[in-house]
Amino acid sequence: MTRQSDEHFMGRAIELAKTAKHRTSPNPTVGCVIVANGVVIGEGVTQPHGHAHAEIMALQEAGPAARGAQMYVTMEPCCHQGRTGPCTEAIIKAGIVHVCVGVIDPNPLVDGQGLVILENAGITVRRGVLPVECQWHHAPFEKFIRKRHPWVILKAATTLDGQIATRSGDSKWITSEAARMDAHKLRAEVDGVLVGVETARLDNPKLTVRLAQGDDPVRILMDSNASISPDAHLLGSDAMVCVADDLSDEVLEPIEATGAELIRLPRADNGRIQLDSALDALAARGIVKLLVEGGGQVHKSFLDARYADELCLYVAPKILGQGRAAFPFDAPETIADAIQIEMISVDPVGDDIRYRGAIRYVDVSSSTEPT
Amino acid sequence: MTRQSDEHFMGRAIELAKTAKHRTSPNPTVGCVIVANGVVIGEGVTQPHGHAHAEIMALQEAGPAARGAQMYVTMEPCCHQGRTGPCTEAIIKAGIVHVCVGVIDPNPLVDGQGLVILENAGITVRRGVLPVECQWHHAPFEKFIRKRHPWVILKAATTLDGQIATRSGDSKWITSEAARMDAHKLRAEVDGVLVGVETARLDNPKLTVRLAQGDDPVRILMDSNASISPDAHLLGSDAMVCVADDLSDEVLEPIEATGAELIRLPRADNGRIQLDSALDALAARGIVKLLVEGGGQVHKSFLDARYADELCLYVAPKILGQGRAAFPFDAPETIADAIQIEMISVDPVGDDIRYRGAIRYVDVSSSTEPT
Repeated sequence: MTRQSDEHFMGRAIELAKTAKHRTSPNPTVGCVIVANGVVIGEGVTQPHGHAHAEIMALQEAGPAARGAQMYVTMEPCCHQGRTGPCTEAIIKAGIVHVCVGVIDPNPLVDGQGLVILENAGITVRRGVLPVECQWHHAPFEKFIRKRHPWVILKAATTLDGQIATRSGDSKWITSEAARMDAHKLRAEVDGVLVGVETARLDNPKLTVRLAQGDDPVRILMDSNASISPDAHLLGSDAMVCVADDLSDEVLEPIEATGAELIRLPRADNGRIQLDSALDALAARGIVKLLVEGGGQVHKSFLDARYADELCLYVAPKILGQGRAAFPFDAPETIADAIQIEMISVDPVGDDIRYRGAIRYVDVSSSTEPT
Repeated sequence: MTRQSDEHFMGRAIELAKTAKHRTSPNPTVGCVIVANGVVIGEGVTQPHGHAHAEIMALQEAGPAARGAQMYVTMEPCCHQGRTGPCTEAIIKAGIVHVCVGVIDPNPLVDGQGLVILENAGITVRRGVLPVECQWHHAPFEKFIRKRHPWVILKAATTLDGQIATRSGDSKWITSEAARMDAHKLRAEVDGVLVGVETARLDNPKLTVRLAQGDDPVRILMDSNASISPDAHLLGSDAMVCVADDLSDEVLEPIEATGAELIRLPRADNGRIQLDSALDALAARGIVKLLVEGGGQVHKSFLDARYADELCLYVAPKILGQGRAAFPFDAPETIADAIQIEMISVDPVGDDIRYRGAIRYVDVSSSTEPT
């Protein structure tokens, strides 16, 4: 029996999960591979909510050959009855003898119990195969479960010198059409797309998926004073508008008439909506992955409050000078305190470069280094 | 006889020229390949000033086998007696039968006459093989000959959002050591490295080649008011300091005492030194390639005056917010008027990304596009 390493097959499971083009929220997008005699005999990825989990998809493809085989799955199989039956039961029944998992399911209903059930049934289990990659892939679900907040992806299209628009607000088009198509793919993967009222006013975006395949996300507007025009493209029955809870019904009526859901939230000291409350409200509405498309002031709010988890930056080969900055927050005193982008990927997209990575906030000022 | 395309061998000649690690100024760094029966039998690159040109190096390597062979050379061979004899004479004598060139030598003493001499000797000549690549490679020499100004490369190490330092001026270290090593290689290729007095004061750089092989460039300080401390690292006998021509000898004495050459230049309306005059003076001192290492105000001056030709940007995976911008000039009204970076290469260098390309200034505002 020739055998590739556990890491090899787990790598394939992660790849399956990452390349899924559909939404699975509120479930995690899990990838699963079944291997017999060193050969992949079944592959699966979590289906849209209410449909089969990755393990079931892979078992179906493997059929009777799953008896005696190994399973590689990016997250621990579930052991509870949800909209679908427990995966552990199906795995035991199919005769799988060895299960490798990337990360434990953070859902309190599972949280390691799935693996205990498998082991009690005589299946050998290996935890933590490619744990860093699996953790990064499942970070949105983990945050949603543990903090009841959406995973926040800041998206911006900037020049090489970090500008998103001229001073007058012109931003069309900094990046190439290929980058805009790529950004639409990202919209199809997230549950909600959020912009601030200034961006809504200046660009009047639709925030829908047009340049790629996939379903539209929920459109979310941050508009503390309900100042948006009811004609704005993003309003309508699949939109949510976060407004301050001190506004009169009369002020809100034109927005409500578009079919948009009003989310009334307390103001922070600066007069804007409390971001914390907004994220609570969005999580309660099933938004696991939230794409924040600006503008700069909205990005600043998310970074200042340390609520931004991931960066997706399209950088065009242009220099603009002092226009509108993508991230206009106050710089720290030292370079050591700059925000770090980790787990980063850097890829050409048309004429532009896409950076994607985890946002890490630095807590401690380092001592001054000698020059 | 198997034969690769002319473009194939010219590509090799360009590669030779680009990977030369030594300075050839004021001569262009030419690459040359000699091919017989489809096989490379000689390769050469221009040697340091006063030594052999690329064609002679390649002919020496080829020896008697050059008779009946083809030559590929990135720039037209010279036909004048300089510190070395005319290359055309050596090519004819060696019995080369076919010469492909990338670009014409812009030197008025050559300017196409080299090719005429070759043709008159019965050698067939093909002009314009890989002309775009050869032109880009020889652009510094072309500018130096035609405009009597150095080729200006702006170099900066920035965060992903275009910042070169915190507000207090901390810039150590935005980029990784690998990027700093790469930047030292660049210093070894240029004739002069220039900084503004603010950078000299804040960072006190040496501007020498320490993290790479190669000779130090001339260090050049822009210091209109001669306010630099005489203890500054960059001062000394291999340094030039551009100061205003209205300063007294007494003020200038401490700088002169370090051995640095003072270049007295008229002030512009803004009180700074006239950049035009500074570039005239540097070209007159043999500076063909000038690396400008900042700070932001110096970069701004070069961009505002459209004297910057090339960008070399090291971008670190960090976000700093509103610190000190790399290019703090006033943004144009529209994105269409942003400065474009063309002929660009994007390469990972350690943890950072290096962008290198030609700076293209846009002249005409485009009409407003529909949103």
